[in-house]
Amino acid sequence: MLVDGTHYRTIWIEGRTVRMIDQLALPFRFEIFDSPDHASTARAIRDMVVRGAGAIGAAGGYAMAQAALEAPSAPDELAAYVQRAAALIKGTRPTAQNLFYAVDRVLASTLAALPEAPKARESASREAEAIASEDAEAGRRIGEIGAVLIKDGARVLTHCNAGWLAFTDWGTALAPLYRAKRDGKRVFAWVDETRPRLQGARLTAWELAGEGIDFRIIPDNAAGWFMRRGEVDLVIVGADRIAANGDTANKIGTYEKAVLARESAIPFYVAAPTSTIDFDCPDGDAIPIEERSEDEVLTASGPEVSTGAIRTVRVAAPGSRARNPAFDVTPAGLITGIITDRGLRKPRGLRESYFVTNSKLPSQSS
Amino acid sequence: MLVDGTHYRTIWIEGRTVRMIDQLALPFRFEIFDSPDHASTARAIRDMVVRGAGAIGAAGGYAMAQAALEAPSAPDELAAYVQRAAALIKGTRPTAQNLFYAVDRVLASTLAALPEAPKARESASREAEAIASEDAEAGRRIGEIGAVLIKDGARVLTHCNAGWLAFTDWGTALAPLYRAKRDGKRVFAWVDETRPRLQGARLTAWELAGEGIDFRIIPDNAAGWFMRRGEVDLVIVGADRIAANGDTANKIGTYEKAVLARESAIPFYVAAPTSTIDFDCPDGDAIPIEERSEDEVLTASGPEVSTGAIRTVRVAAPGSRARNPAFDVTPAGLITGIITDRGLRKPRGLRESYFVTNSKLPSQSS
Repeated sequence: MLVDGTHYRTIWIEGRTVRMIDQLALPFRFEIFDSPDHASTARAIRDMVVRGAGAIGAAGGYAMAQAALEAPSAPDELAAYVQRAAALIKGTRPTAQNLFYAVDRVLASTLAALPEAPKARESASREAEAIASEDAEAGRRIGEIGAVLIKDGARVLTHCNAGWLAFTDWGTALAPLYRAKRDGKRVFAWVDETRPRLQGARLTAWELAGEGIDFRIIPDNAAGWFMRRGEVDLVIVGADRIAANGDTANKIGTYEKAVLARESAIPFYVAAPTSTIDFDCPDGDAIPIEERSEDEVLTASGPEVSTGAIRTVRVAAPGSRARNPAFDVTPAGLITGIITDRGLRKPRGLRESYFVTNSKLPSQSS
Repeated sequence: MLVDGTHYRTIWIEGRTVRMIDQLALPFRFEIFDSPDHASTARAIRDMVVRGAGAIGAAGGYAMAQAALEAPSAPDELAAYVQRAAALIKGTRPTAQNLFYAVDRVLASTLAALPEAPKARESASREAEAIASEDAEAGRRIGEIGAVLIKDGARVLTHCNAGWLAFTDWGTALAPLYRAKRDGKRVFAWVDETRPRLQGARLTAWELAGEGIDFRIIPDNAAGWFMRRGEVDLVIVGADRIAANGDTANKIGTYEKAVLARESAIPFYVAAPTSTIDFDCPDGDAIPIEERSEDEVLTASGPEVSTGAIRTVRVAAPGSRARNPAFDVTPAGLITGIITDRGLRKPRGLRESYFVTNSKLPSQSS
């Protein structure tokens, strides 16, 4: 998407350097973070310099390409090096399906091209690039398919950030809004601020402003109230992993919004590329939920109002402990539909719909 | 309750000075704010130096006593002065039932003692003191009645702060926990941080630590997830106004938690003194909902981690707008029971239960 008139993807590779928009600096500074090797890229994923389902996937793929480029040339050593790298990278964010999808895909492609090291490196780079491009194209398609659901004047509530920053381009939950807006529809967004890391107030708000879409940030606590008052027409959220039965892991708070949407008879959509569906995962109970640092709950950061200097302040009673599950699981029964790059699907019978409508399995690594 | 071994009420009067625990300084500093006159006390209510249903009520009563003490002695002038004061004080927080209850009660008592100014002043002071003491006693009773609902080992979720800081003593939602703990039961509390003003993370956490009750602060987004995982046994919240049909206005997010509790078949209790029930208000639709400044959503304050200096930081994308309804309404149908100082009541038939079980109307001003 455009930033001040220049087209950016959230993450890309130049030589051996992975370059990414620094999502810790946004929305207060627009900076590019350069990662020189796969270990540094893994840290960037863990520390959320890059975050969001598809962007984590692309980062994981590029990190694997870096590993192949760094590895010794002896076939056994190269294989061992990229396998160790895969384990390291996959250990950064346990819930993110796209991470496993991308790492496994680049790993398989690298190993398949051995014993010739140059071919293995070329194969790794090509596969990583393909994953990033497929992600951007999936977002564009999701935008087209999802825009049909957005009537002129619609008020759409979203949670967290499943915009273009969370993918390589376009995004998922926000892509239908971008498409609808470019098609000339009037669109309004309610933006859950999304504690504890405030991706809604920071990243979604920054994206929507860039696309000229009218929005208001609300405390997560207020979403249900605006639904009940009839001020929300539909909800669209992203996904970090979708189980084969349609149960969906996404940012903590998504489950709450799904229950509240049903309470007010508001359609609740999940938007995600096919790469986010984990056909090997039977249901939500099998999805591991990442628990992050208590400090994310106990502190807040941003530019000081009076000076603009970035500061971190304590927001809770000193000595308090917190719990910080990063994701929750929304049962398939609460999801009206899943907007994928291959069409709008019902969560129930998700696996069957893929197996029946496509002549082969979706392109996922074994 | 005790602060470092000394008993405090949240608010009291000495001569013409209203003294209160400064709830903007907590939990980082324990300070007493002195208010010399009724206009200053009204500002303290509006700016939330004092906040919480019963504490606002006590503050409103004391502010009226200050007005009577400040007023000219000519009967007409005194009456006009306290009537203007009543309008000013009632204009500070439109949702808080206890404020209207207390102001009207002291006003009526003052006017009834005229034409003798000294008697009117004495009457105002006595009535304000009675309201504060009744509030403390109501909290103690709510603790006794509510403690019956708390089994040994119970995990109780609460939202916002309806502890002793929100009343003159004991509190409402937290009083049953304090009683249960003193009775020797093991109690654990889940504390919703309660954006935007974080009364849970700041005030409830500070109170619970003072009473030695184990707790964890959670993002508001996580409450539903812990309910779904079976880690919450019951929910107790406070109330800012209860309509005659049992519909309850309370801190924004309360409605969300009530819907989620029902989804997981968890009992959901409201705890409030009789003075919070507005028998003249037929239902939730008739309760005015205060909307507060956008800045409460767009910023966060606290001591800087590195220096301890209190700072305010921006937490949202620059230029963003926000919505900030301070309260929501939970329909009576989602409420398992209302823990009052006069017993545990069903929300449906609330009015009738008072009229039948008591020989006269509850002591409310007309």
